[in-house]
Amino acid sequence: MQEPAAQEGRYRLIRTLRVRNDNVPGVLGRLTTALGKADANIGNIQTVFLGQHHIERELDVLVEDQAHLDRLIQALSQLEHVDVLEVRDEVLGLHHGGKVRMRSRVPIETVEMLRKVYTPGVADVCLRIASDPSQREQYTSIPDTVAIITDGTAVLGLGNIGPYAAMPVMEGKAALLDQLVGLSGIPILLATTDPDEIVAAIAQIAPTFGGIQIEDVSAPRCFDIVKRLKEMLDIPVMHDDQDGTAAVVLGAVMTACRRVDIDMRSVVIGQIGLGAAGQAIADLLAFVTGNPVLGADINPDSVARHQSRGGTPSTQAEIMEHAQIVIATTGVKGLIAPESVRPGQVVLALSNPDPEIDPAVARERGAALAADGRSVNNALGYPGLWKGALACGAREITRDMLIATGTTLSGLASPTELLPEPLDRNAQRRVASAVAQAAARSGVARRVLDEDYFFGEGAGR
Amino acid sequence: MQEPAAQEGRYRLIRTLRVRNDNVPGVLGRLTTALGKADANIGNIQTVFLGQHHIERELDVLVEDQAHLDRLIQALSQLEHVDVLEVRDEVLGLHHGGKVRMRSRVPIETVEMLRKVYTPGVADVCLRIASDPSQREQYTSIPDTVAIITDGTAVLGLGNIGPYAAMPVMEGKAALLDQLVGLSGIPILLATTDPDEIVAAIAQIAPTFGGIQIEDVSAPRCFDIVKRLKEMLDIPVMHDDQDGTAAVVLGAVMTACRRVDIDMRSVVIGQIGLGAAGQAIADLLAFVTGNPVLGADINPDSVARHQSRGGTPSTQAEIMEHAQIVIATTGVKGLIAPESVRPGQVVLALSNPDPEIDPAVARERGAALAADGRSVNNALGYPGLWKGALACGAREITRDMLIATGTTLSGLASPTELLPEPLDRNAQRRVASAVAQAAARSGVARRVLDEDYFFGEGAGR
Repeated sequence: MQEPAAQEGRYRLIRTLRVRNDNVPGVLGRLTTALGKADANIGNIQTVFLGQHHIERELDVLVEDQAHLDRLIQALSQLEHVDVLEVRDEVLGLHHGGKVRMRSRVPIETVEMLRKVYTPGVADVCLRIASDPSQREQYTSIPDTVAIITDGTAVLGLGNIGPYAAMPVMEGKAALLDQLVGLSGIPILLATTDPDEIVAAIAQIAPTFGGIQIEDVSAPRCFDIVKRLKEMLDIPVMHDDQDGTAAVVLGAVMTACRRVDIDMRSVVIGQIGLGAAGQAIADLLAFVTGNPVLGADINPDSVARHQSRGGTPSTQAEIMEHAQIVIATTGVKGLIAPESVRPGQVVLALSNPDPEIDPAVARERGAALAADGRSVNNALGYPGLWKGALACGAREITRDMLIATGTTLSGLASPTELLPEPLDRNAQRRVASAVAQAAARSGVARRVLDEDYFFGEGAGR
Repeated sequence: MQEPAAQEGRYRLIRTLRVRNDNVPGVLGRLTTALGKADANIGNIQTVFLGQHHIERELDVLVEDQAHLDRLIQALSQLEHVDVLEVRDEVLGLHHGGKVRMRSRVPIETVEMLRKVYTPGVADVCLRIASDPSQREQYTSIPDTVAIITDGTAVLGLGNIGPYAAMPVMEGKAALLDQLVGLSGIPILLATTDPDEIVAAIAQIAPTFGGIQIEDVSAPRCFDIVKRLKEMLDIPVMHDDQDGTAAVVLGAVMTACRRVDIDMRSVVIGQIGLGAAGQAIADLLAFVTGNPVLGADINPDSVARHQSRGGTPSTQAEIMEHAQIVIATTGVKGLIAPESVRPGQVVLALSNPDPEIDPAVARERGAALAADGRSVNNALGYPGLWKGALACGAREITRDMLIATGTTLSGLASPTELLPEPLDRNAQRRVASAVAQAAARSGVARRVLDEDYFFGEGAGR
């Protein structure tokens, strides 16, 4: 019998059940057993009322879809001593009103304060920057601010859902920048999908930011857009789906090779899906291992591009047959048939929210290691990367900085995991530090930082 | 002898003096007397150390410039029992690192929370908006977010100092939006001053925002830019230097007419300076009073434009001679000679940071009422205006909404002032409420709000 963990990958809805049961022994056990039998994944459980006769609890459950939720409620309704009082969408509540806000860093409660932060006091600060524009580094938020820009054409694995529907993801990325490394992330939604118009608009607003993060712009347009922006702008430009993802996947691959005892210099890697993420992963792994990566995509143009960049054209079947490490970034749920997994293989099925194969299923089929986008999470990459890049005033994000990110993350993985937890603030600081050092070695850093720069009191927030 | 207040208008530097004096009676009196004699304006005084023999205090002083500060220190050094330990620029400290940051509205400390606000939980929210884009109103920050956009060509009265040097003002405006009405203001700095490029760039990023505030873009370019954006975009566009300023000045003029007992229907108003602010003030006052406004500018094109909009071309000398209410928005410090002020006149010298005439000087010359940009402060207008407009889903900012702003502000002025305090949260809420009602009357509101919408618990933040 499959354990609940075996279906984790396909869980999309999170709901909070408010449940009342009689205060008699064994009811919670029966309740959670029923949830488990109904294939629900149980999250936090909180007691919200404890009476002599009744107990009320709130249970977070993860389910596949609405029909699954209905079956669950039906199952609970058949339990004795148990009433489901409410089914609440806590996730929607958390997203209500949006997840980020621009805040003042100083309270403005007195006229005196108003005169300091606004007119007339602000005029002196303006004139300082007018006479020496480099002083914007000291007296504005610019150097700590990253634009998170999308046209909504390739959002998660959901595809072209448009800029408005992409906003919850952009806000999530901005919220993580704040929470993990104390940077200011500004979502920007574009009204156009035309590459020339995108490049022009971003170039016109670039003075606002210390760095530009391109997000969820579909391939192949993104390759040219990012290349042109990198050439035009004097601030670092990163395409998270390419650069950030490749850095994190590199870390996972390094850990996997160490764990399964594969030599990085001879490993056979297959990349299924040669969109923005897949191509960047293939390129970075080919560089680090010194060997071409097998690449497959349903789009022959993508395979041709892979070949033109030194990769080996292949097919999904060939990759499943021959690769020691299989990486999938296709956005196609369940693309990898369980029976195609070979014993001993490492399988990274990275599409969000639905992986190409459930990691637990892959492990059942004999995979030595398997993971999906929840553990190989790009939240592990971009925050620390930006923190390091902006702190040292890097003029660009170099390949060495991506490799430093992957190497650092791999070094911090616990014995049972490929990578650290995404919310591990220390991992983010270690990445920032390694990135700043790599930037200095690459010759793109404008400042050399103290060794403890990212680790002092209050650093990283 | 002039009181210190008589020079307030020309004060630009704010410094904090740390002063140690012997703990003997009368020293603070001698100290503050010396500061007064040296023409310094004294702000907060804080005791930071109280010993048996010595007292240390921090005194905020406003001075005209560095030379003035030097004279002040020199004067203090001659006092017995007094040592100036430190002269600190608190203002620079407050601006250090910038005044705003994008913050997460939820703490992300657990994996469970990460899965709710980011993948996989976020996918459900994305799909909701993809299937019904109007749900972005509920589940993103878009409807509470205002872009504050400048090309840096007309910053305060400082002129064309470029986008980087304009940033401290944009951040100040964003900080006030947060502090006064709980909206999210996003500064955007433009790399171009070309009207076509500005319009294109703003149109491309417009989906990000609930409203667009154009700031400190020089005339005459701003007229066309704002007009085109208003036509193109389906969200409200406001030029604060025009719309916001005109609304606040209207409030001041209404109060002045009431106070001096001038009939608004026959008042003679003169506008000196027909840039963005001046032209908009003249237009709005002409509409409300039903009479043309006298307009003067050193640029004959501006005067011609004023005439083409129904205004009466004039000169500064004529205006000072004939107008009952004189409004100046020229950016030229000291432009109005004290001897040109007529007894009984109302003088609003609004350039920041340096007014055309110090209000106290104008009053000395017999002005019935005089004020500068510190009391006729546009921070009184745009926050409440945006709060009201966004809350009711206004499709545009109409003239009626500007008039509602001015009327409300005038009605809230204390008996001795033309307008409420800029930091009066209640005034901002009253403006928001009046603006939402005006939007409903104008037929541009998409929602009718409860009467207590802006006044309930936690409202306005």
